[in-house]
Amino acid sequence: MTEQLAVAVLGARGRMGIEAVKAVEAAEDMKLVAALGRGDSLETLLEAGAQYIVDLTVPDTTEANVRFAVEHGIHAVVGTTGWDASRLDSLRELLEQQQGTGVLIAPNFALGSVLASAFAAKASKYFESVEIIELHHPNKVDAPSGTAVRTAQLIAEARKEAGLPSSPDATESALEGARGCEVDGVRVHSVRLRGLVAHQEVLLGGPGEQLTLRHDSFDRASFMPGVLLGLRKVAAHPGLTVGLDGYLDLGL
Amino acid sequence: MTEQLAVAVLGARGRMGIEAVKAVEAAEDMKLVAALGRGDSLETLLEAGAQYIVDLTVPDTTEANVRFAVEHGIHAVVGTTGWDASRLDSLRELLEQQQGTGVLIAPNFALGSVLASAFAAKASKYFESVEIIELHHPNKVDAPSGTAVRTAQLIAEARKEAGLPSSPDATESALEGARGCEVDGVRVHSVRLRGLVAHQEVLLGGPGEQLTLRHDSFDRASFMPGVLLGLRKVAAHPGLTVGLDGYLDLGL
Amino acid sequence: MTEQLAVAVLGARGRMGIEAVKAVEAAEDMKLVAALGRGDSLETLLEAGAQYIVDLTVPDTTEANVRFAVEHGIHAVVGTTGWDASRLDSLRELLEQQQGTGVLIAPNFALGSVLASAFAAKASKYFESVEIIELHHPNKVDAPSGTAVRTAQLIAEARKEAGLPSSPDATESALEGARGCEVDGVRVHSVRLRGLVAHQEVLLGGPGEQLTLRHDSFDRASFMPGVLLGLRKVAAHPGLTVGLDGYLDLGL
Amino acid sequence: MTEQLAVAVLGARGRMGIEAVKAVEAAEDMKLVAALGRGDSLETLLEAGAQYIVDLTVPDTTEANVRFAVEHGIHAVVGTTGWDASRLDSLRELLEQQQGTGVLIAPNFALGSVLASAFAAKASKYFESVEIIELHHPNKVDAPSGTAVRTAQLIAEARKEAGLPSSPDATESALEGARGCEVDGVRVHSVRLRGLVAHQEVLLGGPGEQLTLRHDSFDRASFMPGVLLGLRKVAAHPGLTVGLDGYLDLGL
Repeated sequence: MTEQLAVAVLGARGRMGIEAVKAVEAAEDMKLVAALGRGDSLETLLEAGAQYIVDLTVPDTTEANVRFAVEHGIHAVVGTTGWDASRLDSLRELLEQQQGTGVLIAPNFALGSVLASAFAAKASKYFESVEIIELHHPNKVDAPSGTAVRTAQLIAEARKEAGLPSSPDATESALEGARGCEVDGVRVHSVRLRGLVAHQEVLLGGPGEQLTLRHDSFDRASFMPGVLLGLRKVAAHPGLTVGLDGYLDLGL
Repeated sequence: MTEQLAVAVLGARGRMGIEAVKAVEAAEDMKLVAALGRGDSLETLLEAGAQYIVDLTVPDTTEANVRFAVEHGIHAVVGTTGWDASRLDSLRELLEQQQGTGVLIAPNFALGSVLASAFAAKASKYFESVEIIELHHPNKVDAPSGTAVRTAQLIAEARKEAGLPSSPDATESALEGARGCEVDGVRVHSVRLRGLVAHQEVLLGGPGEQLTLRHDSFDRASFMPGVLLGLRKVAAHPGLTVGLDGYLDLGL
Repeated sequence: MTEQLAVAVLGARGRMGIEAVKAVEAAEDMKLVAALGRGDSLETLLEAGAQYIVDLTVPDTTEANVRFAVEHGIHAVVGTTGWDASRLDSLRELLEQQQGTGVLIAPNFALGSVLASAFAAKASKYFESVEIIELHHPNKVDAPSGTAVRTAQLIAEARKEAGLPSSPDATESALEGARGCEVDGVRVHSVRLRGLVAHQEVLLGGPGEQLTLRHDSFDRASFMPGVLLGLRKVAAHPGLTVGLDGYLDLGL
Repeated sequence: MTEQLAVAVLGARGRMGIEAVKAVEAAEDMKLVAALGRGDSLETLLEAGAQYIVDLTVPDTTEANVRFAVEHGIHAVVGTTGWDASRLDSLRELLEQQQGTGVLIAPNFALGSVLASAFAAKASKYFESVEIIELHHPNKVDAPSGTAVRTAQLIAEARKEAGLPSSPDATESALEGARGCEVDGVRVHSVRLRGLVAHQEVLLGGPGEQLTLRHDSFDRASFMPGVLLGLRKVAAHPGLTVGLDGYLDLGL
């Protein structure tokens, strides 16, 4: 029998943390050794023998958590935001002194979303036209979504490299906003609808054909396969990796 | 055997007219008795014994064509644009003197599109949220499409009657245009993509559910079943009817 | 201020009942006066002054609950299954003696689903081809879904009335099952996919065009707007109504 | 200015050939030097100075055409079917004697379709469930489509390599055919609908999320960007390549 990974969840009483605790407990190749909430001591990680942490805390505490883990040779999978360039640089320096320890910081753990963005960038080199529609619940305060912006940037970069012009558009008269917003030259449309969670479509068109890449997040549970995949692969990727796509076999 | 309807096509050498000639010839219950192009004399209709005309000409000539038909007791199905309120009023007067003759003027003969708009208006009274996405080829010069504008107006009217507020939207910060344009308070998004023809989605959302009504026009052929239906029903609807939905059993 | 409807929920501790309690409490025009679970006495309804009940119990008890309500002039909205023809007949007899009391028995309270089925039947008279795809979570034990079977039956009936032949199909060689199953001559395809809840698409096709009617149920919450609509309308519909579509302004 | 590729089209009077002639003429980096139909002499290729041929003929003549081209150092892009294992082997032998000459034989030139199949195989390793829906016009005689079979085989292979079990399915009672057919353990559903051309959806599902990869072929024109891409890259791929994906930057 394979030995189980000893995993601690930090931020275990938050909405994402609760899901992560369940997911680790349900995974046959993992063992939950600690579940820490706000105020719990990091020393618990050592007492519990944690080899891996999942950090789902808040921007204020994530850096201290991850640095503590790295200093003790514990691999870290991080879903918390707030890692700006200076924090990342400082973490990279620390990791150089801790050869063999791996950290994954991922803004998005939904495998399908990460795959869809990568495929979209790949495919956009072969089509004349590309536009993005993102659809979310009506309580969302910003538009377009962060994922849509990142997808548009990846697409714009891929098309620039391939020397492609922008998508054709003969529009002469339009009501204000009809053609969406532009992110690096890619049109993005934001739909807000009661009943939805988080959804995105990338539409690619060429003469006589269309390719559509759609991702639907129905539930917070959609992040857990990505978290588990991160835990299973982080030890094999020493140093810092940003973005789950670095662990996927995308050949990108 | 049922007697065949004697049909003449006007504008028979235009793109729509060519399709109409084919469609009438292929219909077992119809007989093509004349196919007139620019410059052909309307007297031909009488010589050929036409009981019905399909007018697919141009704004400049459609009024004279239809008035000639009505004056001779010939029913007319009209797809040409350019019928403003004054032309319509004048035609109504003429029809009052020609009891028993029917005219159908329809801006859109695609059955699916007419049904989708009617269903959308009907359904919009039962959902918190509604938005429209229309998708067309990139050579289209205006945005949103005329069909999308009409659909939004029908929806807005139905919701107003039902006393519904506008769709919920918590957006605080948005890139310009991200949330589409507004037609009578309904958000409309216009996508332009090589390979497409004419497509429309009405998205309706309530707690935990979504209803999507999508229509795709792949081809000019999509207008012909509506033209044939118009021909089959126009004699039973004396006077003027505007819009194909007046002939459909929608119970609206 | 309008008077509030005095509503009791029966089966209040079941999954649907819990949602109904929440929905009634949140509705401004309603007041929850009782929430009964298994074993609670029906007399409570009288003590609490209930004018309306929502029955979300089990096939064994629903008949007694509804008969008790009707006998006391309390209107009933019923989502429980198990109402066969003989129970319905017997209830109709009782209602004849209780003029003014209304009962709604609905196998499906999702407004979008009820609308989609009604629209599908309506539209199917105008298209050559129609097929159904239903998509559910992989724990579902039967295929196709009950809703898909009912939708196919409604479509088959509408097409038969309109004198339409079955959808064209030139298939000569097929792997077993490729073309789905047949319900009253309508092809139905059942997809089972992790992550899904309950979804259905009706695809209608004619020359050069397609109409797609899709309904997504993401959540049990999707039934509540239908339950509330039933409560608001049941008093205006004395006697027995089967199916929520009887209360919708569908003009069908 | 870059020199133009000197291209000859074989089978130039067939439906695909007519499109290819148009596409080559419209491409700025190509020059149409010959357009051969049934009965025209292959010697014309030499007289016209063809450096490349596009073979869109019939199974009976394609082998002789391609061998003639290779023997004269002309690169070939081939869309004709009928290349069985023995023909391919024999062509490979010939190519070994003609170092520097390239041949691409592709069963499918629609870029979007090739990309969608490759992405589906890639993604299927990360999801519990996968099913395929293919949708075609109702004159198609076989079900499922060849593309759907190939996509299912690619997916089955990728999942087997990754050690994944088959998609979960708790179905106990089903109408015959409801769950589609099985190709290497992958469920495939075939829809036939008037108005459609050739369409395919691969649905991938995991806890709380879905990824959908859809390709629509509206028109024969959809094959031309793939043919042109083949012409531009064949010289850089000496020897035999089967499948357009070998030329795409998929990192697969």
